[in-house]
Amino acid sequence: MVKRIRHLSKRPKSTKALHQAPGTVTYVGSKEQVETTLEVIDYNADNFERFTSKTPEDAFKFEAEDRTTWINIDGLSNTAEIEKVGKYYELHPLIIEDIVNTNQRPKIDEYGDYFFIVAKMLYYRKDGRLENEHISIVLGKNYVLTFQEAGGDVFDGVRERLSNAKGRIRSRGADYLVFALLDAIVDNYFVVVEEMSDKIESLEERLFNAQPNDDITLEIQELKRTMLRIRRAVNPLREVVSRLEKVDHELVQEQTINYIRDLYDHMIQVSENIEIYREMTWGLMDMYMTTISNKMNEVMKVLTIMASIFIPLTFLAGLYGMNFEYMPELEYRFSYPILLGVMFLMLLGMLFYFKRKHWL
Amino acid sequence: MVKRIRHLSKRPKSTKALHQAPGTVTYVGSKEQVETTLEVIDYNADNFERFTSKTPEDAFKFEAEDRTTWINIDGLSNTAEIEKVGKYYELHPLIIEDIVNTNQRPKIDEYGDYFFIVAKMLYYRKDGRLENEHISIVLGKNYVLTFQEAGGDVFDGVRERLSNAKGRIRSRGADYLVFALLDAIVDNYFVVVEEMSDKIESLEERLFNAQPNDDITLEIQELKRTMLRIRRAVNPLREVVSRLEKVDHELVQEQTINYIRDLYDHMIQVSENIEIYREMTWGLMDMYMTTISNKMNEVMKVLTIMASIFIPLTFLAGLYGMNFEYMPELEYRFSYPILLGVMFLMLLGMLFYFKRKHWL
Amino acid sequence: MVKRIRHLSKRPKSTKALHQAPGTVTYVGSKEQVETTLEVIDYNADNFERFTSKTPEDAFKFEAEDRTTWINIDGLSNTAEIEKVGKYYELHPLIIEDIVNTNQRPKIDEYGDYFFIVAKMLYYRKDGRLENEHISIVLGKNYVLTFQEAGGDVFDGVRERLSNAKGRIRSRGADYLVFALLDAIVDNYFVVVEEMSDKIESLEERLFNAQPNDDITLEIQELKRTMLRIRRAVNPLREVVSRLEKVDHELVQEQTINYIRDLYDHMIQVSENIEIYREMTWGLMDMYMTTISNKMNEVMKVLTIMASIFIPLTFLAGLYGMNFEYMPELEYRFSYPILLGVMFLMLLGMLFYFKRKHWL
Amino acid sequence: MVKRIRHLSKRPKSTKALHQAPGTVTYVGSKEQVETTLEVIDYNADNFERFTSKTPEDAFKFEAEDRTTWINIDGLSNTAEIEKVGKYYELHPLIIEDIVNTNQRPKIDEYGDYFFIVAKMLYYRKDGRLENEHISIVLGKNYVLTFQEAGGDVFDGVRERLSNAKGRIRSRGADYLVFALLDAIVDNYFVVVEEMSDKIESLEERLFNAQPNDDITLEIQELKRTMLRIRRAVNPLREVVSRLEKVDHELVQEQTINYIRDLYDHMIQVSENIEIYREMTWGLMDMYMTTISNKMNEVMKVLTIMASIFIPLTFLAGLYGMNFEYMPELEYRFSYPILLGVMFLMLLGMLFYFKRKHWL
Amino acid sequence: MVKRIRHLSKRPKSTKALHQAPGTVTYVGSKEQVETTLEVIDYNADNFERFTSKTPEDAFKFEAEDRTTWINIDGLSNTAEIEKVGKYYELHPLIIEDIVNTNQRPKIDEYGDYFFIVAKMLYYRKDGRLENEHISIVLGKNYVLTFQEAGGDVFDGVRERLSNAKGRIRSRGADYLVFALLDAIVDNYFVVVEEMSDKIESLEERLFNAQPNDDITLEIQELKRTMLRIRRAVNPLREVVSRLEKVDHELVQEQTINYIRDLYDHMIQVSENIEIYREMTWGLMDMYMTTISNKMNEVMKVLTIMASIFIPLTFLAGLYGMNFEYMPELEYRFSYPILLGVMFLMLLGMLFYFKRKHWL
Repeated sequence: MVKRIRHLSKRPKSTKALHQAPGTVTYVGSKEQVETTLEVIDYNADNFERFTSKTPEDAFKFEAEDRTTWINIDGLSNTAEIEKVGKYYELHPLIIEDIVNTNQRPKIDEYGDYFFIVAKMLYYRKDGRLENEHISIVLGKNYVLTFQEAGGDVFDGVRERLSNAKGRIRSRGADYLVFALLDAIVDNYFVVVEEMSDKIESLEERLFNAQPNDDITLEIQELKRTMLRIRRAVNPLREVVSRLEKVDHELVQEQTINYIRDLYDHMIQVSENIEIYREMTWGLMDMYMTTISNKMNEVMKVLTIMASIFIPLTFLAGLYGMNFEYMPELEYRFSYPILLGVMFLMLLGMLFYFKRKHWL
Repeated sequence: MVKRIRHLSKRPKSTKALHQAPGTVTYVGSKEQVETTLEVIDYNADNFERFTSKTPEDAFKFEAEDRTTWINIDGLSNTAEIEKVGKYYELHPLIIEDIVNTNQRPKIDEYGDYFFIVAKMLYYRKDGRLENEHISIVLGKNYVLTFQEAGGDVFDGVRERLSNAKGRIRSRGADYLVFALLDAIVDNYFVVVEEMSDKIESLEERLFNAQPNDDITLEIQELKRTMLRIRRAVNPLREVVSRLEKVDHELVQEQTINYIRDLYDHMIQVSENIEIYREMTWGLMDMYMTTISNKMNEVMKVLTIMASIFIPLTFLAGLYGMNFEYMPELEYRFSYPILLGVMFLMLLGMLFYFKRKHWL
Repeated sequence: MVKRIRHLSKRPKSTKALHQAPGTVTYVGSKEQVETTLEVIDYNADNFERFTSKTPEDAFKFEAEDRTTWINIDGLSNTAEIEKVGKYYELHPLIIEDIVNTNQRPKIDEYGDYFFIVAKMLYYRKDGRLENEHISIVLGKNYVLTFQEAGGDVFDGVRERLSNAKGRIRSRGADYLVFALLDAIVDNYFVVVEEMSDKIESLEERLFNAQPNDDITLEIQELKRTMLRIRRAVNPLREVVSRLEKVDHELVQEQTINYIRDLYDHMIQVSENIEIYREMTWGLMDMYMTTISNKMNEVMKVLTIMASIFIPLTFLAGLYGMNFEYMPELEYRFSYPILLGVMFLMLLGMLFYFKRKHWL
Repeated sequence: MVKRIRHLSKRPKSTKALHQAPGTVTYVGSKEQVETTLEVIDYNADNFERFTSKTPEDAFKFEAEDRTTWINIDGLSNTAEIEKVGKYYELHPLIIEDIVNTNQRPKIDEYGDYFFIVAKMLYYRKDGRLENEHISIVLGKNYVLTFQEAGGDVFDGVRERLSNAKGRIRSRGADYLVFALLDAIVDNYFVVVEEMSDKIESLEERLFNAQPNDDITLEIQELKRTMLRIRRAVNPLREVVSRLEKVDHELVQEQTINYIRDLYDHMIQVSENIEIYREMTWGLMDMYMTTISNKMNEVMKVLTIMASIFIPLTFLAGLYGMNFEYMPELEYRFSYPILLGVMFLMLLGMLFYFKRKHWL
Repeated sequence: MVKRIRHLSKRPKSTKALHQAPGTVTYVGSKEQVETTLEVIDYNADNFERFTSKTPEDAFKFEAEDRTTWINIDGLSNTAEIEKVGKYYELHPLIIEDIVNTNQRPKIDEYGDYFFIVAKMLYYRKDGRLENEHISIVLGKNYVLTFQEAGGDVFDGVRERLSNAKGRIRSRGADYLVFALLDAIVDNYFVVVEEMSDKIESLEERLFNAQPNDDITLEIQELKRTMLRIRRAVNPLREVVSRLEKVDHELVQEQTINYIRDLYDHMIQVSENIEIYREMTWGLMDMYMTTISNKMNEVMKVLTIMASIFIPLTFLAGLYGMNFEYMPELEYRFSYPILLGVMFLMLLGMLFYFKRKHWL
């Protein structure tokens, strides 16, 4: 059955936060139970350290001029810990608010000596549900902070390449790491969009055998909704990448720009695919409509053929079932077989007529 | 039943004002009975005074360099009082006209030493009706004037935070207060749009059980109308906020700009949500159409099955009801049971046929 | 019935003018019989004179540095008189052509020491017909010329305010008069658009009781046509007003610009309303379609219920109408009442079945 | 029946030219049989000469500083002659290619001392077919060249005005002639578009009486195709005229610009009309759909009424046609008239029911 | 039957490449088995050499200042060879990645002393399948590199003209060769789009005779998909050509720009054709819908006519088949012929009624 993706329209500050002052740090997502955990990866071309912690204080000691530190924070409900990190890295209060505000749309903000990026991870969880996860990235000098709603993400490939001493990623700085993270997010958009394509084709085929139950229209409507939702995640991120490509700041090196341009090309491609699948989805409803009409046509034909053949014959039979005293045919010896013959000819005539009309 | 939101198209000067000169101050709204009342809130980080009055003169005495004064005027039908306020604060005559012209669309005008902002409050009243209220805001040095059509608004959260000595809002100036007011208005757009979402989903479900009465199409049409109406309130306000963000004027401080930028993000989000729900609403009509067709299909199937089974049997019965003298079958002893058997087999055959066609 | 608004597509030079040279002055409108009459209003803050004439020469004597002269010419078929006016005020030949070319779209042209504006008046005549009248306005130093196709216009309010010594209009110059005229034209767009809104709502209600005659679709199509036609009059005028607002010329005073900006806001509003009603109109056809389908559903249900109940009963009756010699049931004493009972139970069963399906 | 306008999509170089080098001069149109003929008109304010020839050499002798020469070449299949003209006037090879490439879209190119303009003539031939003819115009100092696919064009009005000594056109130069030619082309667009309007209205009326044959949908589809095709001819020409208006070149005199601006206004108007008729055409399909549904509704009503009235009556008749031995009613003297009365009442009841449902 | 064009949405790095680092050279296309072969054409106005090889080293020896070398590489699965070529010509690593990434969209990148262009070849293979082949072009000083997925392309015309000593192409440089290659690609777009046009017209005709099977809607949906896919190949290439036209670089000579401008005109034309066919395709579904409804109308008419004629007659026959003892008509001598006459008149009446309704 259809898995509903709801909560599309949640307001930025949900009911619990609605009448609070702007700038108040309140987590509004639906994954409150997740405990906040920190994962620290500290590396340069020669060294690599990986380390998990429950408190931000442990993470701060990893810091050296010639290394890049990636701190990944899972779980946003413990706002106190988030604020501690924010204070340590001197982040603006509005950033902290945006990190825990899971309804914030993708954007990039430049704050003097660091960049703040918001994106949406779309991926399929193990149980097949489409996950829409809010992720915030802070790119500073020598460090990258990522804040996710819950554990489980699309960065395993990045972690693997980091742990591998020979990868290009190890010898580049924090900006390349941010690129690699965004690249991983965008790669997953392709997977999600491709899944859409499969769903559309599967629906196209099911349409023709569909029974007149309600699921198909609901599924098409749901598909539209999902498509619009993906688009809402993807299109603003495209602007983010476009702005990142044009940024003129020492934190983003010249040689990384080339890769970001490539990433931008991918984003355009995702957008184009979404538009195509959107048009295909919109066409599904028309297809379904014609299918229903074709089926009704078929039903009507059966009725029309049966009725057209037997109603005249029944009339004839009724005629000779009348009780008039003076009906000469009733007494003729061969009336009955002759009538049967006439009826048979009428049957043949009707069948021929329907055959010629291609109704049979 | 459907609650109609009418008066969408009222011309800026209604019939009573149509042939008057431009610049004539005439209230054209539909809430004429509301008595004009003034609420004055005067505050700085240390002090807070709140005070209600019937005449503007009482309000004017609250004024000091180091304080911010917010005068909120409810009720626009008493244009003489409005003009008195206008004269005191030296507002341009056209502003006074726009304050009482409830059909004025959202806009921002810069007038040397004050800004004039028009917005629309959308909120649900206690009786469940969607209220579309015209609100004008004047931001001057140390003072903020707000003009509403009637009492009851979305600013209770702001008033509460103002009355609380520890809030950030108390230590900021008039520009932050205007931001807070706009933020409260926009927050309520989210509530309204979310309500739309609920209505769409509720309609989606009701569609399938709908009887062929007229309400559903009317409700969908009404939903479209409301959507277009909300959009008309929201989109121009987005431009207003965008212009406010870029304004370069001593009345709007640097540190407030960050918050306005955030507000702009929210506005974009509302707009996006509206567009998504709009597409969903447009899809509802198609869904309804397929539902109706599916139902007709079902009706036709019942008819076709009943007719296809019994019309041939009736013919057979009619055949042996004929009164020919020479019908040998009539006299055979087992004719009747044999015929019954044949009829039963025909019935089974038809049932099997319809089963195979998935019509049963 | 539907009042057709035809002649939408008339080419700028109608058949009588098609092969003439460009620049030839030929009136192409459909109101040729109207005699040309001139109405002169000459005023300043202290004086007001009003005067009607048949020849332009009479009008020219009214001219003084400190006064504003408004000459309104009704009737364009007498091109000789029009050209006389043109010669007196030294208007470019192409302007004269545009004045009598009723198919010219709204525009504004700057000619050194005067402006030339073309607009369309839309208003309802006394007989209820929507009138689309071509109007040309020349704004010069101290004078305003207006050329209309026929008598009867939307300027009575302006004339009244002019005759009233206390009005603001008397103390302002020719540019304010032009603003007031355009304002009157735009005010009437609101009336026309509001009428559209009423027609849409009336159609929405009539749809559900509509008999399958043709008028409704024709009316909807007609409504679309009218909407597109209004849009064609309104949208170019919006550009005209926008350009007038930005004009930098001594003929348009600083203080009038504020009013023109206000007028521009109104134009935007008309445009927005048109777009909303356009979407509503487009939705009407879908509504009508579902209504028709719902009605067919209802028809089919009646047929299906009648047929499903009585066809099996008729079969049973036919069965016992057979003339077999050996049908034991025929001789049992209680066969008839038992059969009647069975039939009654079948009837109840069918009714219950249809009740449960919500077809009754 | 529908006259198909095919060859919409011919590639610029048709099969005969597909694998040739770009710049090769090959005529790709469908009017190869037309012999190339030249018509020379040489004039100034005082003189006028007109002359027809088969070879370009005859034409070249007409040339004088103080005169304007218009050479009109009909027939493009004789590319050698075209190239001769091209060589004489020193035209770029790509221009020659564009002259004979009838699939070239409208454009304007500036080549130092001459302009090259491509346009499409749309007009109705005597046999009622819509002709789409490729025309190229070269505007040089003192001369204008026009190249047409075949004889027969829209320029007869221009020729007539040229032959008339008093016309404005005689005293102006080559640039005004080009304007006059374009004006003639655009005037004919109005005729063509107006024809569309007539077709739409005629279709609207025929829709309601249409038999369920296929022509109407085909005609609507054909109308759409024609509309799109006209748009493809008109819209690029609009850009051409717009660029011509803004050109800053001694070949185009200041005083001609005013006329070109007027022409541009006409182009906008054609475009607007096309868009309106396009929307109307798109609406036709919906209208047709509702008409079909309304007809089906009517058919179903007849069936339902007939069946609902007579099926129950037939059942009653069948009931008393049963052969049970013990059916007391059969022997009552007044059974038959009573039953007839009951049947008549049932008939009345059904008629009343259908009347109340507005089905009769 | 429908040939499905799948794999529309493949992500840039397919599953085998998904978690690799960006910049890793992996071929992701579906034509892995193709062996890499090189074809070298080396020419100037006087000389021409053509030569095929399996290893790039052979190709590199062809190089002279006064000659142009075109190296065409077929087959991208052997990435080692590709990288060898890249190293020899000092191409950026990201270019190598784009060459083998068949999902890269059309683009142009300027890299100091060479240009990198990506395009899509669309052509019909001998077996009638539409081929979408990724092609990369490198334009350097004196050399052009082309990389194709497999053998078989649209460049045979170019090769032929190159081998012909008299062609213009031999005397121009590498930039003109690139133009000629792009021109060949675009020429084939016209062929593909024209094929679409044929398919639409063929579908239009088949619609009316279509049996209610599923293929037609699937084919229309497929046509839409193909159309969207072609558009995705064409539109970005249009931007590429537009940028190439405006490029200011010594590699692209002034005289070639004229030809590129012409190519750009062709691209616009392809785009316009695609949009027209797209609208036509979208219209097909509506046409099909009306066709189905018309057919159902016809079926219903047959049923209604048969039932309306015979159901009343059957009732009459049933009436006189009743077994009442006192039915005076039964004994009248002429009852039977009179009844037959009445029935015949009823039949005529019904036929006349249906005739007048145009149902017959």
